[in-house]
Amino acid sequence: MGVVVSLEEDRSKPSLEALSGLVSDDLKAVNDLIIRHMDSPVDLIPQLASHLIAAGGKRLRPMLTLAAAKMCGYQEGDRHVALAACVEFIHTATLLHDDVVDESDLRRGLASANAVFGNKASVLVGDFLFSRAFELMVADGSLKVLGILSHASSVIAEGEVLQLITTNDTETSETAYLDVIRAKTAQLFAAACRIGAVVAERPRVEEEALETYGMNLGITFQLIDDVLDFSAEQAKLGKTVGDDFREGKITLPVILAFRRGSDAERRFWRRTLEDLEQSDGDLQQAIELMVKHDALADTIERARHYGSIALDSLGIFDDGPEKRAFDGLIDFCIERAH
Amino acid sequence: MGVVVSLEEDRSKPSLEALSGLVSDDLKAVNDLIIRHMDSPVDLIPQLASHLIAAGGKRLRPMLTLAAAKMCGYQEGDRHVALAACVEFIHTATLLHDDVVDESDLRRGLASANAVFGNKASVLVGDFLFSRAFELMVADGSLKVLGILSHASSVIAEGEVLQLITTNDTETSETAYLDVIRAKTAQLFAAACRIGAVVAERPRVEEEALETYGMNLGITFQLIDDVLDFSAEQAKLGKTVGDDFREGKITLPVILAFRRGSDAERRFWRRTLEDLEQSDGDLQQAIELMVKHDALADTIERARHYGSIALDSLGIFDDGPEKRAFDGLIDFCIERAH
Repeated sequence: MGVVVSLEEDRSKPSLEALSGLVSDDLKAVNDLIIRHMDSPVDLIPQLASHLIAAGGKRLRPMLTLAAAKMCGYQEGDRHVALAACVEFIHTATLLHDDVVDESDLRRGLASANAVFGNKASVLVGDFLFSRAFELMVADGSLKVLGILSHASSVIAEGEVLQLITTNDTETSETAYLDVIRAKTAQLFAAACRIGAVVAERPRVEEEALETYGMNLGITFQLIDDVLDFSAEQAKLGKTVGDDFREGKITLPVILAFRRGSDAERRFWRRTLEDLEQSDGDLQQAIELMVKHDALADTIERARHYGSIALDSLGIFDDGPEKRAFDGLIDFCIERAH
Repeated sequence: MGVVVSLEEDRSKPSLEALSGLVSDDLKAVNDLIIRHMDSPVDLIPQLASHLIAAGGKRLRPMLTLAAAKMCGYQEGDRHVALAACVEFIHTATLLHDDVVDESDLRRGLASANAVFGNKASVLVGDFLFSRAFELMVADGSLKVLGILSHASSVIAEGEVLQLITTNDTETSETAYLDVIRAKTAQLFAAACRIGAVVAERPRVEEEALETYGMNLGITFQLIDDVLDFSAEQAKLGKTVGDDFREGKITLPVILAFRRGSDAERRFWRRTLEDLEQSDGDLQQAIELMVKHDALADTIERARHYGSIALDSLGIFDDGPEKRAFDGLIDFCIERAH
């Protein structure tokens, strides 16, 4: 019966459909281009690539580029398709290296590439995808786009190193954590949106509006992801929870619960996340402490705050289906938490 | 006494001095630029970078760019310095990822970065350096250079994956092995040389001559490196030998000894390199089999062959100190084996 209720709820929930419907033809072209450019005489590369493609994923980042280009009136060619593929290549390369760094065995509920093909292959194929992304950008020929995406890549890598350092450190501040997710997650959302305006040759103010949208949407998205990892609802739906907890990752719900907690509770957080001494029931205990201190609800509130900034940033664009899809995407990101 | 003799021999040996003397001021500028661009508010990045810089290395690849630009008459600016730094960044990123893939604890006789800072940091800082290289190239602003170096990066990554597959496979053919080293080593030598002609805006024939030089020099360099890993002389001088052997890497000396060996010898190679079942005396045994079948001497002969192609490729350039330094570099690479 719980399942029936949740299905009915789903119908009224904000979905990705408005956005994906608008860009569906272009997204198909992106997928074709990705498969073509992952090809290599070295069999392991397309093999590992197929594994990643089969694993699916929402293709959220390339959709941002496609929809932004469309909202900016870009019609002349296929540059947005090639650049959306670049964005997805960079994202995929990052995921491959992330899984090696996190020692993850699962990605989106399937065996991760490193679990199937080994860490070595994941490192090297990640490098390959990253290089292919740059080759594709060079073929596009815009130094401006190259500047945006090479800068984004460098910020992402810096953010990943920063996260590596803050992992297992329960003293991490909210500000330091936001720096991490701005760099490792939101920067690529921002770049993906901005290049939509660049290919359409729109004025800088529109580029910057889209960049602000992407940056704040990215923060919203990541904060909700952090909440979902501790969500009892998700667990009921059969989804994996507690990955961040098991890896000792410090996310905003943890930071809030730690700061609001008693000395005894802080000892709990230090034992489980710094010393990684975890036993059965600890994840449940973590969730209960978060609920007790409103850490999950308040992380959602923080996410709403960034969502509002994203919403306002697009105020300079005329109303239309793309703008409404971008607005709806913010709700979709937040409502995932419910 | 052995030391005295080898020192005296050294004096008459070809050295890097002609080349490094010609570009010493520019190379200092490259080093400064590398240190500046490795900086980051995330402390671990400059820490790891300093470790790499302290580890030294010959800076052979950036010297190629600097000397090629000089031979091509480039005088107007500092583009060759920035691009030489890019080449070194790409090389360093590759080394960082290589050490993770090889699980190496030593690099140039010092503890490798992954041994000191961990595999995770090495993967992520490698990504950072790679991204920084692209940022620097974008700042240079030449799509032609971006095309050459992004293509080289993608070929290198493909070559690394190919090597991963051929590791531990004693059936690897000489041709397949040459494909690996062309991609993983020689391609960056070729790109480093070629961009010297590009910044000097020389005709395509000169670009291609320098690319051919770099490609063949790179093959020569790698083949001699392969020989040195099995060199009794190196062992006598206190240098590490046998790294490739312990990792089960299939290099040309192994390929030649395997193909020329008896069934019993092939069983030895399979046990030690495919099954990685090695015990004391196996490295010595491997060296003896290589000597018996002239595998080391003939690898040096193969290296000379590629060195000759490199030498001839520069025939179209006028005589001068740079050309003589490039010629001498081939001898230097080969004579390292003696």
